[in-house]
Amino acid sequence: MRGVIMHGPGDVRVEDRETPTIEAPTDAIIRVTSACICGSDLWPYRGQDDYGWPAPMGHEYVGVVEEIGTEVRNVKVGDFVVGSFFASDNTCEICEAGYQSRCVHAVPMGALGTQAEFLRVPLADGTLVATATRPTPAQERSLLAASDVLGTGWFAAVAAEAGPGKTVAVVGDGAVGLLGILAARELGADRIIAFSRHADRQALARSFGATDIVEERGDAGVAKVKELTGGLGAHSVIEAVGTQESMMQAIRSTRPGGHVGYVGVSHDVELPGLELFFSGVHLHGGPAPVRRFLPDLVDLIMRDRIDPGTVFDLTLPIEQAADGYRAMDERRATKVLLTF
Amino acid sequence: MRGVIMHGPGDVRVEDRETPTIEAPTDAIIRVTSACICGSDLWPYRGQDDYGWPAPMGHEYVGVVEEIGTEVRNVKVGDFVVGSFFASDNTCEICEAGYQSRCVHAVPMGALGTQAEFLRVPLADGTLVATATRPTPAQERSLLAASDVLGTGWFAAVAAEAGPGKTVAVVGDGAVGLLGILAARELGADRIIAFSRHADRQALARSFGATDIVEERGDAGVAKVKELTGGLGAHSVIEAVGTQESMMQAIRSTRPGGHVGYVGVSHDVELPGLELFFSGVHLHGGPAPVRRFLPDLVDLIMRDRIDPGTVFDLTLPIEQAADGYRAMDERRATKVLLTF
Repeated sequence: MRGVIMHGPGDVRVEDRETPTIEAPTDAIIRVTSACICGSDLWPYRGQDDYGWPAPMGHEYVGVVEEIGTEVRNVKVGDFVVGSFFASDNTCEICEAGYQSRCVHAVPMGALGTQAEFLRVPLADGTLVATATRPTPAQERSLLAASDVLGTGWFAAVAAEAGPGKTVAVVGDGAVGLLGILAARELGADRIIAFSRHADRQALARSFGATDIVEERGDAGVAKVKELTGGLGAHSVIEAVGTQESMMQAIRSTRPGGHVGYVGVSHDVELPGLELFFSGVHLHGGPAPVRRFLPDLVDLIMRDRIDPGTVFDLTLPIEQAADGYRAMDERRATKVLLTF
Repeated sequence: MRGVIMHGPGDVRVEDRETPTIEAPTDAIIRVTSACICGSDLWPYRGQDDYGWPAPMGHEYVGVVEEIGTEVRNVKVGDFVVGSFFASDNTCEICEAGYQSRCVHAVPMGALGTQAEFLRVPLADGTLVATATRPTPAQERSLLAASDVLGTGWFAAVAAEAGPGKTVAVVGDGAVGLLGILAARELGADRIIAFSRHADRQALARSFGATDIVEERGDAGVAKVKELTGGLGAHSVIEAVGTQESMMQAIRSTRPGGHVGYVGVSHDVELPGLELFFSGVHLHGGPAPVRRFLPDLVDLIMRDRIDPGTVFDLTLPIEQAADGYRAMDERRATKVLLTF
């Protein structure tokens, strides 16, 4: 089969890979119908993460079940499915509490590489969610978003306790931040302030529900949020970048007693204890337990209630994956969809 | 009046201070009947905090109202009262949300110095809670504990979401940690693991509701908590020290999705972003909004439902305050009560 392999920073190739097979009775093999490139794939692309090269790439996927192991009960051959970027048993105590990305048997799908024609999904019963009917192309695109960026933005909004009566600020105008805006709107937030200085992303932010745009960053951005919130700061802040500046911008934009939901994978972040202490904020985040939200998200998408798939602004055949990485790296694209 | 002044690390003196008077119509003057020495007073005593010397000391207090400003409505002359270590208006948006220690008009009582015969309490209506009847000596001692250490331990337990079905671990066996145990028990926790290597504090911990004692610290302590919780970690962890080691011990003792309530004033703490990210814990803490809990705590104490005053294991007249600081510094006393 064909699949994307990164051989080092900036070096993305599409190559022949061995087609996966059932290894455990709880596995399923799916034919990937769409995959995509994640903002987090840019960290190794830019040489900011240590990877063991060559590395199969991708952790987001939708597709059709081709084969199931003997113990798989919840999906069957021919089902259209979406799964999270962590495989999970969905039955352990941690999963039961809603933290499937930290399942005691969790498997990071990124290690398997979903930017490929076929994919082995471990723990299929606890990982995959099937749609009742075959999705339309627009629905399929949105389901692919649910696999990570929508699920992650949703988790961030839930972690930030976005909801009625709340002013929500969103740090980061990548796909996750943008879909955090959509999630905050769906959760009923009164007002949603998006930090963004890119006209195209500002437009997308407004389409997802942002009511205010702040172009300033860092302390100037914080001052602007304070100005918009009677000097107090936002009730809820979504952090979707993962740098020192973005984390401090998020914490400082939050009022005492407010909530920061952070989902940007931390890079060289050190949180100053004393400032955090006196901030009085709630801090929660990490790798999103997307599986917790998937059934609801699939339902919203299949009823055409939300259209998160509009974050994909460039679609390329898998053979042109390297162009997709380049486009995202150069910010010519927000999110790249790969077709097969 | 007589009051405690610190002139520098290790240099505590009892001196004549000017008796406070009403400065604003929202002030009250109280005759302090008991005050106490806080674990946090040891930071400047040990030269670990920069203070402007000489500094009036103390932020915990109970007493009798002597005089009120013209706008004070909720307390009257002769009332027995307890207040938090932050004065608060209890009406602003932050107070309404339960974060009175971050009230937009907050005044730190430590700046006024409560280890003194008389005390000016700003924003008396929003700060003080009066008892219906004059407390017994045991109740008075417990009310004094409510002013900070009980209120702070209670906040930590609430921030850690201690409750039915939960295993709670408590880092720190000072007065706050010990009363965090009491709070966790009152909130209905199933199991309470106290980290302590001091026999006297272990006994107090058990009297407040600890079900397990772990003598190990750091990673060895974490391993022990994991062993006691099926490898997962505690649901709820109270951090009541404020050092790098104690914070990391608390975070690492918590299962993914669990809650850390931290109330030890941070000293040279830097939280590693990536580890925090992958821990998946909730982190909440800071200066406890004691006023949120005071009405309930006063009620529990005046009905003799809880007896947090047993944390005071040394009582001295105010003139011997220096001996009290020394006893706490040398860990000969857990918590020192000062009488007038």
